[in-house]
Amino acid sequence: MDHTPGAEASGLTEPTAPDELADVTKRAMDRWSTAHSPRHADLMTSLVQHLHAFAREVELTEEEWMRAIEWLTATGRLSDDKRQEFILASDVLGLSMLVVGLNHRFTPAATPATVLGPFHIDGSPEVPWGHDMSDGLPGTPLYVTGRVTSTDGTPVPGAVLDVWQADTDGAYEAQLPEVDEARLRAKYRARDDGSFCIRTIAPHGYSIPMDGPVGDLIRHTDISHYRPAHFHVLLDEPGHRRLITHLFRAGAAYLDTDVVFGTKDVLIVPFTPRPAGPSPDGATCQRPFLSAEFDFVLQPD
Amino acid sequence: MDHTPGAEASGLTEPTAPDELADVTKRAMDRWSTAHSPRHADLMTSLVQHLHAFAREVELTEEEWMRAIEWLTATGRLSDDKRQEFILASDVLGLSMLVVGLNHRFTPAATPATVLGPFHIDGSPEVPWGHDMSDGLPGTPLYVTGRVTSTDGTPVPGAVLDVWQADTDGAYEAQLPEVDEARLRAKYRARDDGSFCIRTIAPHGYSIPMDGPVGDLIRHTDISHYRPAHFHVLLDEPGHRRLITHLFRAGAAYLDTDVVFGTKDVLIVPFTPRPAGPSPDGATCQRPFLSAEFDFVLQPD
Repeated sequence: MDHTPGAEASGLTEPTAPDELADVTKRAMDRWSTAHSPRHADLMTSLVQHLHAFAREVELTEEEWMRAIEWLTATGRLSDDKRQEFILASDVLGLSMLVVGLNHRFTPAATPATVLGPFHIDGSPEVPWGHDMSDGLPGTPLYVTGRVTSTDGTPVPGAVLDVWQADTDGAYEAQLPEVDEARLRAKYRARDDGSFCIRTIAPHGYSIPMDGPVGDLIRHTDISHYRPAHFHVLLDEPGHRRLITHLFRAGAAYLDTDVVFGTKDVLIVPFTPRPAGPSPDGATCQRPFLSAEFDFVLQPD
Repeated sequence: MDHTPGAEASGLTEPTAPDELADVTKRAMDRWSTAHSPRHADLMTSLVQHLHAFAREVELTEEEWMRAIEWLTATGRLSDDKRQEFILASDVLGLSMLVVGLNHRFTPAATPATVLGPFHIDGSPEVPWGHDMSDGLPGTPLYVTGRVTSTDGTPVPGAVLDVWQADTDGAYEAQLPEVDEARLRAKYRARDDGSFCIRTIAPHGYSIPMDGPVGDLIRHTDISHYRPAHFHVLLDEPGHRRLITHLFRAGAAYLDTDVVFGTKDVLIVPFTPRPAGPSPDGATCQRPFLSAEFDFVLQPD
């Protein structure tokens, strides 16, 4: 700002000089560049630059700034071990899928990654070939078979598939109070030829939680707040990149509008209806069931 | 990503196609552009764009993303009516001063604005000319006199100066539990000629709270976590733009390194030492005191 006596006396109505506003950005970046870790310095200076660019582009008002402060506070206060509203916010802004993409630049031959989501629980029990991880919960039986291989087609013998999903009401175990035993989650070990057999129930689409600050952001938009029917698989094998992915049911609702941007074409698989009788686990299913086939292809380190 | 059979079989090690990463940003912006309020749409699409640009520029890792989620959660959980860690974060990133600058583009003739800070309390008591708002708290007596005028020099008769500050330990009333009466805050009304007389104690510099997530960010940098000695004034007069500002003590420590970027040259005023005797309120001060003069110049609407 020009503080010469002439300017002070003139009462001109020009706005605050643009260079004064640019200066606060430069000074803030300079300060944060003093972080002792080069990575901390890079992260903070870039954050300052982009945060300021946002405020400048939209000419953020003080009322909007205060609403943002209140939104962040409410989001933090709602988050705990059971519910993570900031992860949900990252998901619906497309940030989570962007970070997945930045960190899992697999070859096209490998199965692509998608979001972990907030509902994974460590330490699921290892179960035998074809074990029913739904353990009698209501739903249509679903068998998923296939192989775990490396990108060159060689099997990954004994690969462990850590599988989890929501029940037919859309609830994950992590969202339910007082569940004593593993519920709709299990670890399946592949055979020496990489083949595996999962038995569960067909997942349904579901809404993300809409009763919090993220729901407040979405409510007055045309954004669909549903996820298409899917289950999650995590594979972490020596010699290969960790793979966190989903399989989606072909033809399911919301495949094109997944609220967390998680859908990828190659992860959409048909769930084929089968009559009661011989089932893919080599036994017999007393009810009509669904079967799906998918090969998980891991990227070597 | 290229899913042609040739590409699938080749096992090439090229990274995920850049256009796939760009696509999630475009799709997220398209979605949020459906917000029913044009302003909500503008804010959200710009936020998505700049947030993604940040993640892309620093190649944000999943571990860093998770640490950011945890940082945001801790910051929200620490914030309540008494402490606002998100405002503090905005302050130390320079965002608060940028927003002040964007929203208070006053003419050079007007007194510039600076940050409100998290410690203003509404409804301070109106006190008479020269009243001692320190009410016997330890500290050096300080008299501040001057006039409230419009940018053309005409007085603003009866203007109300809402004043607040920290005690000599750096504590604001808002930070202290169980304070019954207004403490180091008051409203002074100017006379018909715009003149006012404040009596208080000289403010000291102080550290921002360093025991929370903001302190964690700052600790491993060379950033000074202090604010220079200042008090706050808010003026909200009909016919004029609202002014929220500080006055800083000339020669004080930390003027060049104010952790919230609040210092402006024209807001730095000498606190002149005076012997016990006649004081600026027209009475007598039994102790040596300090006096400062400043004219608050308001921008007409």
